[in-house]
Amino acid sequence: MDQKKRRVVVVGGVAAGMKVASRLRRLDPEVEITVIERGSQVSYGACALPYYIEGLFEDLDEVRQTPAGVVRDETFFRKVKGFDVRASTEALNVARKARILRVRDLQTGEEENLAYDVLVLATGNRPILPSIPGIDLAGVHALKSPEDAGYLMDLSRTARTAVIVGGGLIGLEMAEALAKRGIAVTLVEMKDQILASALDFGMAALVHRELRKNGVNLRLGEGVQAIEGEEGRVSRVLTTGGSYAADMVVMAIGVRPEVTLARDAGLEIGPTGAIAVDAGLRTSDPSIYAAGDCAESTDLLTGKKVYVPLGSTANKHGRVVADNICGRNETFAGILGSLIVKVFDLNVARTGLSEEDARLVGLDPVTLLAPSPDRAHIYPGAKPIVIKLVADRASRRILGAQIVGPGNVDKRIDTLVAALTLGATVDQVAAFDLAYAPPFASAMDPLITAANALRNKLDGIGISLDPAEVMELLEGEEDFVFLDVRSPAEYSEVRIPGSTLLPLGMLRQRLAELPRDRRIVAFCKLSLRGYEAQRILQGAGFDRVCFMEGGILGWPYLLESGPVVSAAAGAA
Amino acid sequence: MDQKKRRVVVVGGVAAGMKVASRLRRLDPEVEITVIERGSQVSYGACALPYYIEGLFEDLDEVRQTPAGVVRDETFFRKVKGFDVRASTEALNVARKARILRVRDLQTGEEENLAYDVLVLATGNRPILPSIPGIDLAGVHALKSPEDAGYLMDLSRTARTAVIVGGGLIGLEMAEALAKRGIAVTLVEMKDQILASALDFGMAALVHRELRKNGVNLRLGEGVQAIEGEEGRVSRVLTTGGSYAADMVVMAIGVRPEVTLARDAGLEIGPTGAIAVDAGLRTSDPSIYAAGDCAESTDLLTGKKVYVPLGSTANKHGRVVADNICGRNETFAGILGSLIVKVFDLNVARTGLSEEDARLVGLDPVTLLAPSPDRAHIYPGAKPIVIKLVADRASRRILGAQIVGPGNVDKRIDTLVAALTLGATVDQVAAFDLAYAPPFASAMDPLITAANALRNKLDGIGISLDPAEVMELLEGEEDFVFLDVRSPAEYSEVRIPGSTLLPLGMLRQRLAELPRDRRIVAFCKLSLRGYEAQRILQGAGFDRVCFMEGGILGWPYLLESGPVVSAAAGAA
Repeated sequence: MDQKKRRVVVVGGVAAGMKVASRLRRLDPEVEITVIERGSQVSYGACALPYYIEGLFEDLDEVRQTPAGVVRDETFFRKVKGFDVRASTEALNVARKARILRVRDLQTGEEENLAYDVLVLATGNRPILPSIPGIDLAGVHALKSPEDAGYLMDLSRTARTAVIVGGGLIGLEMAEALAKRGIAVTLVEMKDQILASALDFGMAALVHRELRKNGVNLRLGEGVQAIEGEEGRVSRVLTTGGSYAADMVVMAIGVRPEVTLARDAGLEIGPTGAIAVDAGLRTSDPSIYAAGDCAESTDLLTGKKVYVPLGSTANKHGRVVADNICGRNETFAGILGSLIVKVFDLNVARTGLSEEDARLVGLDPVTLLAPSPDRAHIYPGAKPIVIKLVADRASRRILGAQIVGPGNVDKRIDTLVAALTLGATVDQVAAFDLAYAPPFASAMDPLITAANALRNKLDGIGISLDPAEVMELLEGEEDFVFLDVRSPAEYSEVRIPGSTLLPLGMLRQRLAELPRDRRIVAFCKLSLRGYEAQRILQGAGFDRVCFMEGGILGWPYLLESGPVVSAAAGAA
Repeated sequence: MDQKKRRVVVVGGVAAGMKVASRLRRLDPEVEITVIERGSQVSYGACALPYYIEGLFEDLDEVRQTPAGVVRDETFFRKVKGFDVRASTEALNVARKARILRVRDLQTGEEENLAYDVLVLATGNRPILPSIPGIDLAGVHALKSPEDAGYLMDLSRTARTAVIVGGGLIGLEMAEALAKRGIAVTLVEMKDQILASALDFGMAALVHRELRKNGVNLRLGEGVQAIEGEEGRVSRVLTTGGSYAADMVVMAIGVRPEVTLARDAGLEIGPTGAIAVDAGLRTSDPSIYAAGDCAESTDLLTGKKVYVPLGSTANKHGRVVADNICGRNETFAGILGSLIVKVFDLNVARTGLSEEDARLVGLDPVTLLAPSPDRAHIYPGAKPIVIKLVADRASRRILGAQIVGPGNVDKRIDTLVAALTLGATVDQVAAFDLAYAPPFASAMDPLITAANALRNKLDGIGISLDPAEVMELLEGEEDFVFLDVRSPAEYSEVRIPGSTLLPLGMLRQRLAELPRDRRIVAFCKLSLRGYEAQRILQGAGFDRVCFMEGGILGWPYLLESGPVVSAAAGAA
């Protein structure tokens, strides 16, 4: 009997691979399972590594502990989970016809053939390291494994300056981690904004403000040209825009799927560069699955193949693969590109299509920017969030959302993830019976307020421009009234250059002061009074009136300005 | 022209009424709008009143301030919002044929007829005060208006003991508010659990533990028989179970819709006792709408008329009514009975159908209890939550959820609100691309873990009992093995009486110690190792094995126990 046991070999022992093996063992006590991992450690939480460097926990081993405090090493997996794990073991090649994986023990150098009935590729990703002078200097490093984290942590103990190359998730997290450790951080990003593939510019600009507020030297639109060093150690980074001191450099311009083994074995590689898979995560060879950061996913909204490597997706992939190895016929539906990241005191999240994404796929997006306190504004600890909703004009379906602010953004983004997955319209979102009590939300949750504001816009009741459109007006020739309807006290605290004060409470009495032949753009701190002003003026026969979405809180153009930031902090 | 302006009169100036008037004015600058309110204040946030009494903000006026700090009084509404509000004005009766509302100024006693084209009833609710001896004593009071809050606040400044009658939302919030002010609080509830219409017993029991941990004398299953006093002031409360000192008594057994005006006018009252309305919130008289706490709603899942008075629903009602007055043909779809409440360090939320609700409407619910840390367990501040999911066995649709814990419950409940509204199955929820980063969630979000555990149960892979079922076993005759698979260290810290220790890591080696002829119920701290043990034992041929859902964290029966509580607090 033993000879007929099915043999499953998993290449990669971090997120997806370990999930495949663990679930598979639970589903089938008989199958032989071997996991091989090139690194010296398995089953670690790679996403937690920046927080180790920030100093939020002491022992690097914590990233591979269970909630009960047990280290997930080879012994743990053999005794508790019931399968074999071989760390420091590299997969060399796949003989697909013979169903043999050749591996090498990296410590002894010994090679061996592992026969398989099913092979799972969970080979993960590989940080992109550009071919620039100095990339090999000591002190220049990417962050992927606990070993990397240990190396960067060691550097950080003595570094006084650091350059982070890349404004993606890891770049942002590392900027915060190192800045909080007292290191002078320069963040270099080639695009004109951070998180360029995730956020529209206006939302990213709110993050730029936060980075600068916290002392990060943010260099946008600069490409790294060379890294300079002394005695083999990094000392400076030269970009298209400047030269920055660097006792350490974190390379974080992105990752590529690790597909060498798959490509060499002749498996199909998809248009994203990741291993092509069907809905059941089978590769072009039905005996071989791919899961996690080496495999492509499908965008739920566009149906297109996408590459978004994330631990959350890797775990979902792993479960599907294990189920399918057991003949359970599972599918992985796809992803929405949901992301969340903490950047100092700002929480930044997105899901679905950005405004730009939507245009690129030929949709006609209508967007709405709505700031609100994240709970009843009189409840202690209430903090603002700025929600940007993107909907399809004709179908009124929600296409995506971006939410930024010191307040609770994750709740609203996850609620929208559910809405997007299930194809909700903005009208359905506005009707959600969200749980309300003052410590958690306002009676009209920020999400419902945003949805209603977007409905008003779609219905022609709310007429508005977003900050970028207003900026264009301000920079243009048109002579318009930029009407701040806040109170004199608020106006004296912070104002947008070019604006005129007329508090909302006096608007109905002082209509005669306003010109009827020029455009009027009203705004306030959030957007509510601005909208109210638009309706009052329209009701009084002004026919070229609108309000500016986002108000002061959503206005991203006073990037270096103290007052705007303090206005944001005080919105609660 | 002016004579032909439509006249809209709104009765009730708190949540729904003010929303109707504000939205209506924005939609239609011409219509004449008059709001009358019996109380002396309008547009206050009633839900915030317990937090005033707790001392979280100084000035009672804050409950009627805008986020910009302006008090919403009659002047504010006239100048900013553009309609008339008359406080301290009572509606006496409606002459429907003549379309006249007769009102009385409560300060001058003068009566007046207000002609209307459209009448909106937003008369709110009225606290239930039982006819028991002593109910009229000074110091016995319900909480509804700012005046009530002021009165209770005054009492609380000198009170050393308080009795709260009723374990609903207001009762729980007032228990916390007064206990935090140093008052010895007794909470009396006639049912055997708090929030009886919202939570299943096991989830409520976790709240009982929190109340007792915080020194509240929780008296369940006791009915109040009389209130005793000295010189007209309350001093004791007598219940079916005891006698409790009370310098003040908060009556919080519930509210009824205020329908006197509607009933006297011959409008149809629904089976819930609230004003019957159609989907557009029209009463049986097409010229009269009802909105907010006086009107019934429809349960989205059962289609039945329900009465759940909440500020969030009132605001939604108000918007629909305003739209319909303007001929916009809006409908209010219904509610899910979503609730959330903070009880000391515990967050408690629910939506949809409870297990008991589901059985009552003839469904076949399958439930699952799953505790998890609310974010990556190694991230600072991670705290546990216990999720109970209820699904329909045949369709696999999610029917409801209850979530309790010190961690972030509101995010998961709102995500489920979206899922329930849109008819998601548990399989769809498990596939949600929720936003993941360690400060906000774990790679497998607690919600996804719970959904997967429920899928395992539906698929016969996870075989489990909930705590109540295990308690029945423990109290019964059957000789079974109650197998704690945690570590010896965890076991020495807290254990459930009757349990046997066999750590998961030794289980595969020590199978011979376990009987094959008896039932085995495995458990751990969360449920993950318990489930793993079930699969290991089943794989080894044990055929009467299951795990206990919820583990130590979800075990509600050691109510007074310190160790269990400390185990819960340490789960992060």
